[in-house]
Amino acid sequence: MTVTDPLPRAAPLTLHDDRLFPAESRTRDIARELYETVRNLPIISPHGHVDPTMLLSDEAFADPTSLLLQPDHYVTRMLHANGTPLTELGVGEGPLPEAKARKAWRTLCANWAVFRGTPVRYWFDSELGGIFGVTERPSAENADRLYDQVAERLAEPEFRPRALLAHFRIDVLATTDDPSDDLSAHRALAADPTFGARVVPTFRPDRYLEPFEDGWNAAVDRLAAAADMDAGDYNGYLRTLEARRRFFIANGAVSADHSHDDVITTGLEPEEAARIYRAARAGDVTAAQATAFRRHMLSEMARMSCDDGLVMTVHPGVLRNHHPATMAGFGSDTGHDIPVATEYTRALQPLLTRYGTHPNLHLVLFTVDADTFSREIAPLAGFYPSVYVGAPWWFLDNPAEIRTFQRSVSEIAGLSRLSGFIDDTRAFCSIPARHDMSRRLDAGFLAELVAEHRLDLDEAMDGLSRLVTDQPRAVFKL
Amino acid sequence: MTVTDPLPRAAPLTLHDDRLFPAESRTRDIARELYETVRNLPIISPHGHVDPTMLLSDEAFADPTSLLLQPDHYVTRMLHANGTPLTELGVGEGPLPEAKARKAWRTLCANWAVFRGTPVRYWFDSELGGIFGVTERPSAENADRLYDQVAERLAEPEFRPRALLAHFRIDVLATTDDPSDDLSAHRALAADPTFGARVVPTFRPDRYLEPFEDGWNAAVDRLAAAADMDAGDYNGYLRTLEARRRFFIANGAVSADHSHDDVITTGLEPEEAARIYRAARAGDVTAAQATAFRRHMLSEMARMSCDDGLVMTVHPGVLRNHHPATMAGFGSDTGHDIPVATEYTRALQPLLTRYGTHPNLHLVLFTVDADTFSREIAPLAGFYPSVYVGAPWWFLDNPAEIRTFQRSVSEIAGLSRLSGFIDDTRAFCSIPARHDMSRRLDAGFLAELVAEHRLDLDEAMDGLSRLVTDQPRAVFKL
Amino acid sequence: MTVTDPLPRAAPLTLHDDRLFPAESRTRDIARELYETVRNLPIISPHGHVDPTMLLSDEAFADPTSLLLQPDHYVTRMLHANGTPLTELGVGEGPLPEAKARKAWRTLCANWAVFRGTPVRYWFDSELGGIFGVTERPSAENADRLYDQVAERLAEPEFRPRALLAHFRIDVLATTDDPSDDLSAHRALAADPTFGARVVPTFRPDRYLEPFEDGWNAAVDRLAAAADMDAGDYNGYLRTLEARRRFFIANGAVSADHSHDDVITTGLEPEEAARIYRAARAGDVTAAQATAFRRHMLSEMARMSCDDGLVMTVHPGVLRNHHPATMAGFGSDTGHDIPVATEYTRALQPLLTRYGTHPNLHLVLFTVDADTFSREIAPLAGFYPSVYVGAPWWFLDNPAEIRTFQRSVSEIAGLSRLSGFIDDTRAFCSIPARHDMSRRLDAGFLAELVAEHRLDLDEAMDGLSRLVTDQPRAVFKL
Repeated sequence: MTVTDPLPRAAPLTLHDDRLFPAESRTRDIARELYETVRNLPIISPHGHVDPTMLLSDEAFADPTSLLLQPDHYVTRMLHANGTPLTELGVGEGPLPEAKARKAWRTLCANWAVFRGTPVRYWFDSELGGIFGVTERPSAENADRLYDQVAERLAEPEFRPRALLAHFRIDVLATTDDPSDDLSAHRALAADPTFGARVVPTFRPDRYLEPFEDGWNAAVDRLAAAADMDAGDYNGYLRTLEARRRFFIANGAVSADHSHDDVITTGLEPEEAARIYRAARAGDVTAAQATAFRRHMLSEMARMSCDDGLVMTVHPGVLRNHHPATMAGFGSDTGHDIPVATEYTRALQPLLTRYGTHPNLHLVLFTVDADTFSREIAPLAGFYPSVYVGAPWWFLDNPAEIRTFQRSVSEIAGLSRLSGFIDDTRAFCSIPARHDMSRRLDAGFLAELVAEHRLDLDEAMDGLSRLVTDQPRAVFKL
Repeated sequence: MTVTDPLPRAAPLTLHDDRLFPAESRTRDIARELYETVRNLPIISPHGHVDPTMLLSDEAFADPTSLLLQPDHYVTRMLHANGTPLTELGVGEGPLPEAKARKAWRTLCANWAVFRGTPVRYWFDSELGGIFGVTERPSAENADRLYDQVAERLAEPEFRPRALLAHFRIDVLATTDDPSDDLSAHRALAADPTFGARVVPTFRPDRYLEPFEDGWNAAVDRLAAAADMDAGDYNGYLRTLEARRRFFIANGAVSADHSHDDVITTGLEPEEAARIYRAARAGDVTAAQATAFRRHMLSEMARMSCDDGLVMTVHPGVLRNHHPATMAGFGSDTGHDIPVATEYTRALQPLLTRYGTHPNLHLVLFTVDADTFSREIAPLAGFYPSVYVGAPWWFLDNPAEIRTFQRSVSEIAGLSRLSGFIDDTRAFCSIPARHDMSRRLDAGFLAELVAEHRLDLDEAMDGLSRLVTDQPRAVFKL
Repeated sequence: MTVTDPLPRAAPLTLHDDRLFPAESRTRDIARELYETVRNLPIISPHGHVDPTMLLSDEAFADPTSLLLQPDHYVTRMLHANGTPLTELGVGEGPLPEAKARKAWRTLCANWAVFRGTPVRYWFDSELGGIFGVTERPSAENADRLYDQVAERLAEPEFRPRALLAHFRIDVLATTDDPSDDLSAHRALAADPTFGARVVPTFRPDRYLEPFEDGWNAAVDRLAAAADMDAGDYNGYLRTLEARRRFFIANGAVSADHSHDDVITTGLEPEEAARIYRAARAGDVTAAQATAFRRHMLSEMARMSCDDGLVMTVHPGVLRNHHPATMAGFGSDTGHDIPVATEYTRALQPLLTRYGTHPNLHLVLFTVDADTFSREIAPLAGFYPSVYVGAPWWFLDNPAEIRTFQRSVSEIAGLSRLSGFIDDTRAFCSIPARHDMSRRLDAGFLAELVAEHRLDLDEAMDGLSRLVTDQPRAVFKL
C-alpha cells in the first residue's frame, strides 16, 4: 500500500427506515403507515433490570465496554460460545482498566459475524448507529476507532444516564429489587423535582420463599429487620412480607415478580405451612418440604396481590446456572441459564380456583417454553379476566419468536389480553432499540392482518397504539 | 350536533373477496384461482355439535343472542376474559327474555375490539355480512339497530334452520350423541322426504368408560335399558356397547368420538377387566383401577371399530372445567377447558400393535397440543394406514395454527393423510364461515407450493378438491 | 381414440430454477443471487448411511427400484400408509426379480399423488429430472416407460457409483459403521489412487452401550476380538472401546454417533459401573441397571472424545420399531420409528459440567422434537463452546421445519453455532438433491434477513458460504 492508496473502506452501518417490516410491498406500505403512528410515543417499561443508583448519581458511563458489553449476558454468552473466555470480557468483575476494556471491545468487534441474524446484532446496530452516531460496521480493523468514538460521546453531558433517559423518551421505568431494599434511590429520584421520569421498584421475593436455599434464614432475618417486625413464626413471616409489599407500594411499586423452577401453586393448610416454617427456621427442612412451602407461598402471594393490588408476574422454567464452573468463577446471570419444559394449566389451577376472577388480581404469565403460548397461556388468558399473556421474553425476545407469538396468541386470546412489550433488560442503551423492534414487529403483524382483509386499517392503528401504550399501563396499573 | 349534521357514519363491515389469501401478489393470484374451484362445493361436516331437534322442529330462531352469542363458548369466554360476567351473557340459561338478550347483544357489540385478530371475529364478520346482510361494523352505537336487523331476518322463512342448512349447502352434518339416545330426531329427519341433507349421529361413549365418575353406574343402567340388555357383568357391558354401536350405525352413524385425559390404550387381561367392572358396579372402584379400565376400554373400542367399521376419532389432552366456580354456576363447555401437554406415540402403541394395519380401522387423531402434529401425529399417520391426521381443532382452529399445521404435517405425512376440515362447532351459522376459511387457507397453502415450484397447478387443484370433498368422505366413510 | 389422435400427453416434470425460493419478488431476487454463489460448491456430507462397499465394488445399480425405492424408508412408509403392503415394495428383501422390481415401480408411479407437498417428492423430482433426464411426471401410464429409461441410464458407465459420486461433487462422505467393523472397504478406497473422494467411517457404538439388549454379550466379545483385547472387566471394556475408536480414527473417522432413548448423562462411580458391567457380562443385569450404565457410558464417550478428538453427535428421542409385526416381518429402519418428547437441558448437564468447555469436545445435538430447538438446544449452543446445533433431520428435514429452525435457532444461537446441512440418508441419489434443497433454503432465509434490512448482502453471502462449507468442515473437524 502506498501513501496515495485510499484507506480500506469499512462496510457501512446503516439503519434502514423499513427495517423489520414485511418484505411484501403492500404489507410493508401498511406497516410503515402504522409504525409512524407509534414511532415516537414514550416508552413504558414495566419490567427491567436497570440500576436506579445509576440514574440517581447520574455519573458519566465509564467506557463503551462497561456500558455495552461487560454486563450484558446476551452478548457475552455468544462470544463465550464462539471461543472467548469470559475473563477476557470482564464478566463478573468491577470497573475495568482502560487496557482491558479496550481489549474486550476489540474482541467484540472482531467477532461481529457471530451476531449475524440475532436480535443482539439488531440492538447493537440501533445503539451504535442511533445513539452514538457510528456509521461503520464494527470489525477488527476499526475497533479502536469505534471505541474512541463512543468513549468520546460518553464524556459529553448529553450521554449521561438522565439525559439519555429523557432522550429515549422513557416515561416509566420499573427496576427489580430485593424486598429488604430500603429503596432510597427510588425515593431520592421521586423527591428530585428536576427528574421527570417515573422510576418504580418491583418486589422480587424469590429468595425469601425458598427455605431450602443457602442463606434463607439470614435473608428472612434481614427482611424482618427491614420491616421492623418479628418473623419468628409463620404468621410473623406473612405479616413481614405484607409489610414490605406495602412499603414497596408506598414507594411506587406496581408489581411483584416471581421466578421459581415451576409455577405450581398448591396450597397447604396453615398449620402445615407453619410447621414447615418452624422447621426451616430451625435449619431442619427437607427439600420436599421447602418445595411444598414455596408452592404454597406462591399462592399466598396471589392472595396478597388481591389484597394490596400488586400485579403478579411469573416466569418459571429456567434451569439457572447450568455450568457450575462458570457459576463459581463469574456468578449468576452470566449466560448459562437454560430453559426447560414448563407447565401452567395444572400448576396454576389452585391459584386461579381461588383468585382467578378476583378484580384486583393481574397475573402476567411469561415463558421461555414457546409451546406453552398456544397450548396453555393463551387459553388461560382467554378465559380468566385476571390472566394476561406476557410478551416473548429472554430467549424468545427476537423477531422470529415474536412473530410466532403474535400470530398464535392473538388468534386464541385476542390482542387485548397481551401485556404489551417488556424489555427485561440490564442493557440500558438497548431499551429504545428493543421497544422500537417491538413496535416495528407489531406494525408488521397488524399490517398482515390488514393486507389479508382480516382487520380494517383504523382498527389496526387503534390496536397498535393500545399495545404500545394503553395495555402496558392497564395491565401494570400504571 | 344540529339536525343538519349527518349521522355519525359507522365503519363499514365488508367481506373482501381476497380475504385470508397470501398477500404476495403472484401467490394470491394462484390462491384465487384455486379457491374458485372449491368455493361453492357442498359442505361435508363429519364432526360437530349441532342439535338435530333444531332441524327437526325447524322453528324460527328466537333472537340474535341465543343464536350467535349465548351458546358459543368461543365468544363468551373472550367477553368473560375482558370483564363481562357470564351471567350477563345468559350462559347456561335457557331462553332469554328480550331485554336480557338485547343487553347481552349490546355487550357483544360494545366489546367488538376484543375479537380483533381472532377467528371469532372472522366468523362473525362472515355471518353478519354474509348471512344477515349487515354492512356496519358492530359498536355500542349501532348495537340495537343490528339486533333489530338480525332479529327481523330471523323471523323470515328463509332463515329457519332447514332453509339455512340448504342455503349453506350442507350435504352431510354429523351430530354428537349420547349412546343411550334413541336417535328419534335423526330417524324422523331421515324419514322426512322433504328433508334433503344427511344428518348422522356420532357415538360418544366417554361417560360410559369412566367408572370413577359420578353417575357412571346409573349411566350404564340407562345404556343397558336402551339396548334392552343386561350389563350386570363385564361381558354384558361389552355386548351392550356393541349393541348400541350397531343401533347408531343402523341410524346412520359413521364414527365414534372419544375424549379422555389421555389416549393411553394399554389393555387388561379379560379377567382383570371383569374384576374391575364388578368392583365398579358395586361402587367400589379406585381412581387408578378406573383409569386402567378406561385405557383398556379405549383399546376395546378400536377392536369394535375393526368389527363394525365405525371410524374412531380421539381428542385427548384437555383439562375440563378448570374453574370450579364457573362449573358450579354455569356448567361445562363454558370456556374454561384448558389444554395440557399430550402424548400419542407411546400411548397408542398397544392399540396400533393390535389393530394398526386392520383394513376396517380409521383412527383420526385430533390434538390441542400443536407440538404433537410434527412430532407424533404426522409420523404415525405417515406409516399406519389406519391413522389420519385430524384437522386443527378448537384452540388451534385459526389461520395461524392452520398454516403451521398445513406446512409441517403435509411435509411429513403428505396431503393424503389429512382428515379434511372439521368444524366441531355448536354455532350453526358459523359452519359455512368455518369451512370457507378452511378452503381459503388450503388454497393459500397450495398456492405457496405452486409459487415455490414445488407443485404444479393441476396437482394443486386436484389436491384442494380432495381435501374439501374426497378425503372427508373417504376418511369418515361417507 | 383413433390412430390419428395424439397420444395423451403426460404432465411435464420440470425443475424450475427458482424452486424453493421465497415468492416475494425482491426477496427472491436476493435469494437467487445468494444461491448462485454456492450452487456448485462441493458437497460435504459428514453424516449418512451410504454403504462404502457400493463405492468399492463400483458395480452398476441393479434397477431403478432397488436404487430409488426399496431401501428408502422415507418412500416406503408413505406408500404403506396409503395402503401398499411393504411386501409389494420388496422391503427387507435382497435383490428383486425384474418382474417384482417393475411392479413395485408401477406402484410408486401410480401413487405419485401421495408425495405431493413432501420433500420426498422434491427429492424424487430432482433425482429423476436432474440425474436421469426424466421429463414426465410419473403416473400409472408412464411407469414402465420411466422404469426403462432409468434402467437404461443405470447400465451406462456414467451412472456407476463412483461416476455419480464425482458427478455429484461429493468431496467428503461419512458412512455409519459398527465399531467391530474392520473398515476394509474404507481402507481400500483410501488406498485406491484412482478414487478421489474422502469416504470416512463413523463410530456408532449404540449396541455396545446397552447391556440389557439381546446379544450385548456377544457383541462385546466381538468388539474385544476386533480390538484383540480383553473385555472381561469394566476397565478392559473401556480400553477396548478406546482402542476401536483409535482404529476408526486411524482409518479416517472424525465422529462418533449416538442414539439412545434419551441423552441423560449421569455418571456412576467407577466401582458401581464395574459392578454393573460384571453383572451384565454374567447375564444378570436389570433394565434399570442397564439404563444407568448406558447413561454413564454416554458421559464416558464424551471423556473419550476429549481425549481422542472424535466429534460426538447425539440424536435421541425416537421410539424405534413402533409396530412389532412390521419389525418381525421386515426388520428395523422400515418406517415405523416414531418420535417422542425429548429433554436435553437436564439430561446433558452432567456431561457439560465436566466437559462443556473442553477444547477438544464438539458435541452436535440433533433432535426430532422441534420444540427443543428454541427451548434447549439453541440456548445450550449459545453458551457452551463445545455444543453445536445439528441441522433439522429425519422427520424435520423438510422446507417447513427447516425454515422454522433457521429463524428460531439462528436468532438465539447465531448462525455460527449451526452444524451445516446433514443429509443422513441411505438414498445415494438423493444426496445432491438434499444438499441443493438446503442451499436454496439457506439462501432464501438469508435473503429474508437482507430484505428486512437486518443483514447486508455481503454478510449474507459470507454467511451462506460458511454454512455450506466452512461450518461442516470446522464442526466435524474435516
